[in-house]
Amino acid sequence: MIYTADEFKKLVEEIQSQDWYRNPIGFGIARVDRGQLNPEKILQATYPVVNWNENFGSAAIFLNALKDSGADVDTTKSELVCNVTDDFLTSCIEAFRPFNPEAKGDAHRNVQVISSLATLPLDSGLSPDDFKIVFIFEDTNPVSVESVYLKLYALSLGKAKLRSLNLNGAFGVLENCAWTGSQPIELEWLRANEISLKITNQYPEITMVDKFPRFLSHVIPANNTRILETSKVRFGAQLAAGTTVMPGAAYINFNAGTEGAVMVEGRISSSAVVGAGSDVGGGASILGVLSGTDGIPVSIGENTLLGANSCTGTAIGDGCILDAGVTILPGTKIALSEKAVAQLKEINPDKEITPMMKGSDFIGVNGVHFRVNSQTGQTVAMRSTREVKLNSDLH
Amino acid sequence: MIYTADEFKKLVEEIQSQDWYRNPIGFGIARVDRGQLNPEKILQATYPVVNWNENFGSAAIFLNALKDSGADVDTTKSELVCNVTDDFLTSCIEAFRPFNPEAKGDAHRNVQVISSLATLPLDSGLSPDDFKIVFIFEDTNPVSVESVYLKLYALSLGKAKLRSLNLNGAFGVLENCAWTGSQPIELEWLRANEISLKITNQYPEITMVDKFPRFLSHVIPANNTRILETSKVRFGAQLAAGTTVMPGAAYINFNAGTEGAVMVEGRISSSAVVGAGSDVGGGASILGVLSGTDGIPVSIGENTLLGANSCTGTAIGDGCILDAGVTILPGTKIALSEKAVAQLKEINPDKEITPMMKGSDFIGVNGVHFRVNSQTGQTVAMRSTREVKLNSDLH
Amino acid sequence: MIYTADEFKKLVEEIQSQDWYRNPIGFGIARVDRGQLNPEKILQATYPVVNWNENFGSAAIFLNALKDSGADVDTTKSELVCNVTDDFLTSCIEAFRPFNPEAKGDAHRNVQVISSLATLPLDSGLSPDDFKIVFIFEDTNPVSVESVYLKLYALSLGKAKLRSLNLNGAFGVLENCAWTGSQPIELEWLRANEISLKITNQYPEITMVDKFPRFLSHVIPANNTRILETSKVRFGAQLAAGTTVMPGAAYINFNAGTEGAVMVEGRISSSAVVGAGSDVGGGASILGVLSGTDGIPVSIGENTLLGANSCTGTAIGDGCILDAGVTILPGTKIALSEKAVAQLKEINPDKEITPMMKGSDFIGVNGVHFRVNSQTGQTVAMRSTREVKLNSDLH
Repeated sequence: MIYTADEFKKLVEEIQSQDWYRNPIGFGIARVDRGQLNPEKILQATYPVVNWNENFGSAAIFLNALKDSGADVDTTKSELVCNVTDDFLTSCIEAFRPFNPEAKGDAHRNVQVISSLATLPLDSGLSPDDFKIVFIFEDTNPVSVESVYLKLYALSLGKAKLRSLNLNGAFGVLENCAWTGSQPIELEWLRANEISLKITNQYPEITMVDKFPRFLSHVIPANNTRILETSKVRFGAQLAAGTTVMPGAAYINFNAGTEGAVMVEGRISSSAVVGAGSDVGGGASILGVLSGTDGIPVSIGENTLLGANSCTGTAIGDGCILDAGVTILPGTKIALSEKAVAQLKEINPDKEITPMMKGSDFIGVNGVHFRVNSQTGQTVAMRSTREVKLNSDLH
Repeated sequence: MIYTADEFKKLVEEIQSQDWYRNPIGFGIARVDRGQLNPEKILQATYPVVNWNENFGSAAIFLNALKDSGADVDTTKSELVCNVTDDFLTSCIEAFRPFNPEAKGDAHRNVQVISSLATLPLDSGLSPDDFKIVFIFEDTNPVSVESVYLKLYALSLGKAKLRSLNLNGAFGVLENCAWTGSQPIELEWLRANEISLKITNQYPEITMVDKFPRFLSHVIPANNTRILETSKVRFGAQLAAGTTVMPGAAYINFNAGTEGAVMVEGRISSSAVVGAGSDVGGGASILGVLSGTDGIPVSIGENTLLGANSCTGTAIGDGCILDAGVTILPGTKIALSEKAVAQLKEINPDKEITPMMKGSDFIGVNGVHFRVNSQTGQTVAMRSTREVKLNSDLH
Repeated sequence: MIYTADEFKKLVEEIQSQDWYRNPIGFGIARVDRGQLNPEKILQATYPVVNWNENFGSAAIFLNALKDSGADVDTTKSELVCNVTDDFLTSCIEAFRPFNPEAKGDAHRNVQVISSLATLPLDSGLSPDDFKIVFIFEDTNPVSVESVYLKLYALSLGKAKLRSLNLNGAFGVLENCAWTGSQPIELEWLRANEISLKITNQYPEITMVDKFPRFLSHVIPANNTRILETSKVRFGAQLAAGTTVMPGAAYINFNAGTEGAVMVEGRISSSAVVGAGSDVGGGASILGVLSGTDGIPVSIGENTLLGANSCTGTAIGDGCILDAGVTILPGTKIALSEKAVAQLKEINPDKEITPMMKGSDFIGVNGVHFRVNSQTGQTVAMRSTREVKLNSDLH
């Protein structure tokens, strides 16, 4: 039994000095939803607390408690998923003892998780089978549902940068489920029970069929963030505080999102990132690497306006305007007047600005206004004269 | 105790003749949702009945009952929000006595509200704290959540014209909440309870995070109105009977909407209004005053078609067509042939029609067909030859 | 009582040989939702099992059981809707006896329905009034809610080809309802109870107001099909296995859909069909016969890409590309270079390819890339050089 914070610190150091020990990149305890017909299938993993390059003391205690309780703790693999047993919990409680009194609110959240698990109401219907403790040691292709979820949490909680994590093969790992709200249901179970569910009027309301859950089923956004419809943001997206997502034609896919307060009324495809103060207009489309771009993930700068129904398949700089309805693909030829070349050179001294450029030539070029001349149909670029002001009042 | 309608009338007149009395613009009794952590925060106000420039007799009875029951009734401010007490209810019941027997269905709905409140089941879990009586005396900036909701009701119920009410500062008054269906939840409460809710699988399904509720959480549309997805219409929007809102890229913001049967498959931004018989095509965008227009709210006339993925930042007249994919901003230069000038002059005798016009020159011009010539890229306007027929069968 | 499969077969043949008997096109037993105020109004019909040009043995048993139990069985009309009585059930059970033991999973699903109905729990709250047996003998205009639903099921289950069924007048037959999840509510009932529901905080969450339910309320999609938001697919749509529907600007109306694995991020209007391997980009719009096409239902070929925010009002062939933001209507004039004419002739030997074509001239022409020249604004067509590869990993 550990009685003081010092003793705790010593115990952690002792564990960390052992040969088998390895600090995880991320770890946490998840409640898992299992298949109704095939309980060995994990359909979803819900983490109350996610640790990402942090809280290594708790990691040491958890790994040690697993070892002590007889689990096979192999830290040489890229990830580790273990059962949460009574012995594991007891061991953790003994180690966390000094922090228990102050484990409230934002303090010692891993300790709070252990306490909650140790005091689960008997009538909760939950058993140790419903919980897993999960570690990621290397950012390689995820191999378990639990580790895919842990990475998606790291992205959506802003603990890992967008595009920084390896999610290759995630689609192959996750199960395609019917969802009733936040609860996944095996499609096979629905089929097996269709007749009786329909006849007795107990067929569940299916809100979607997908491999990924929705962002709001797992993440609590900042106080000044708004998501006007839950289906519009996939789990694994990242929304900086102050972002607003409108319900018209908006969508933010996983591994995509915003880096500051952004008004989103259009699509931010997987791998696309939008800078602070920008506005993705109604129906505007930022293409992902697999749909019409040249394979380079699209970044939109700060304070840039993508007009309604515009489309971009290449990166756009800061303080730019893409007029409503205008499409800029990497290969789009764009004409600049002599004046436009001079003005854009002035604010982009390190860029090559010429009278005829392609869409992809504008990567990193700031202050550009992309338009189509309504008399000639010519796509042109000029110095942006308008500033983009996000309206904090309306919307 | 009042025994006859005549006595009621006399009582009302007596109240109305008193110095302190003032007829309200709007009033009603609301059930309020309070913060789970901070009960002093009002998250939502639900009005079973809204009075707007009407039912001044009930207003007099309510204000008098408040005064009698000891409330501080200051009618010199722009709005008044009071608690609903037992004394208040008793006083109202005594005054409404003559109308009680016939207070059913559409008759005497304020009386019905009082009766419902007086006979609340003990096991309803509701207390007087859950109800407020609200008056608006002047249409200045709203200062309470209750008065913002009352104004939004007036708009959504069609009791006040779109753009006619002062909602300045409403965003600052309303709380940003997580919503599970129609029920608001403080984000702070979610955070404080995240661990236990997630572990015990009781985390609520969050359907949105916003300051405004959805239209359908408060308003029952006309029998021939259809809204195919609740997130597509914000509370404070106004939909004339016969309007259909499709679930693709449609969205109708607050203080925006339709003045007759309109097919809506695109965006009607805040402050935009669409006339009867018009069709807002799939993905079409009607810009609001703060996103690319010249600050003049955009009205779309009657019997006008905005084609799929078109965009307009300026008003369009009656019987117009905006071709699919075409964008008309206030500054867009639009060419007209001699024939087009002549034909449009004929049906718009009081307008100046010239061979080269800007988008904003077309305000109030009817029968225009806006196109882009597919061989020259030139944006042109001509006399609309097609009539826009809304299909009552399909959709 | 029937004891063997042979006896069953003989009974069926005997029934089928009778004068009054007629094989139905489709039939099934539905649980019906009735109006809360007007129980004679049928709001919805839910079929656990749908038979379409199949299982004529069961049809014969059902029709005979109806006749035996005293129902008025008129097979000369286009459709027949009867009550499900105890006598009817008893008669069916006796006839289905040989198949009862093996009636599980996918086997003998009509027998399973009868067994379920015969063993309804007393506390289910359901009565014989809640069930109907429905037959369609001729594909004429549907006249009952039950037969409209049966046809929509046939389409959504892929048992009938898109555009193959007569649904004329269906909008007139169906009731417009408020829906709370999959449960329809009469708007009149909501109105009649608004005050008490709102005061007691029991006002239901209304998820939509429409005549049609959603696809996912009735149909279980294939294991590799994904629908990321239930509102995006109307009941009566047909989705081939492997189709993915994204939640941004997508929508698939009834009697529209896909014939193979298709990525859908745009709108497929009623009567439009998209071929296998194609991609309907974000916000792309495929027009229906009543919104800007020339009245010919629009088919999109296989392996074709409709770019983001593109729009087509005419059929497009296989292996085509419509660039992001480009609109092709039936009358759009499209220029082809000499080289393009030659290359397209080569792969379309039986089509007339000329230097200037209209949108509708491209019906059945494969391998076309539609673009707008960004320097001249001219809409052009050339040989598509890119193949369209659906990414099985991402999305």
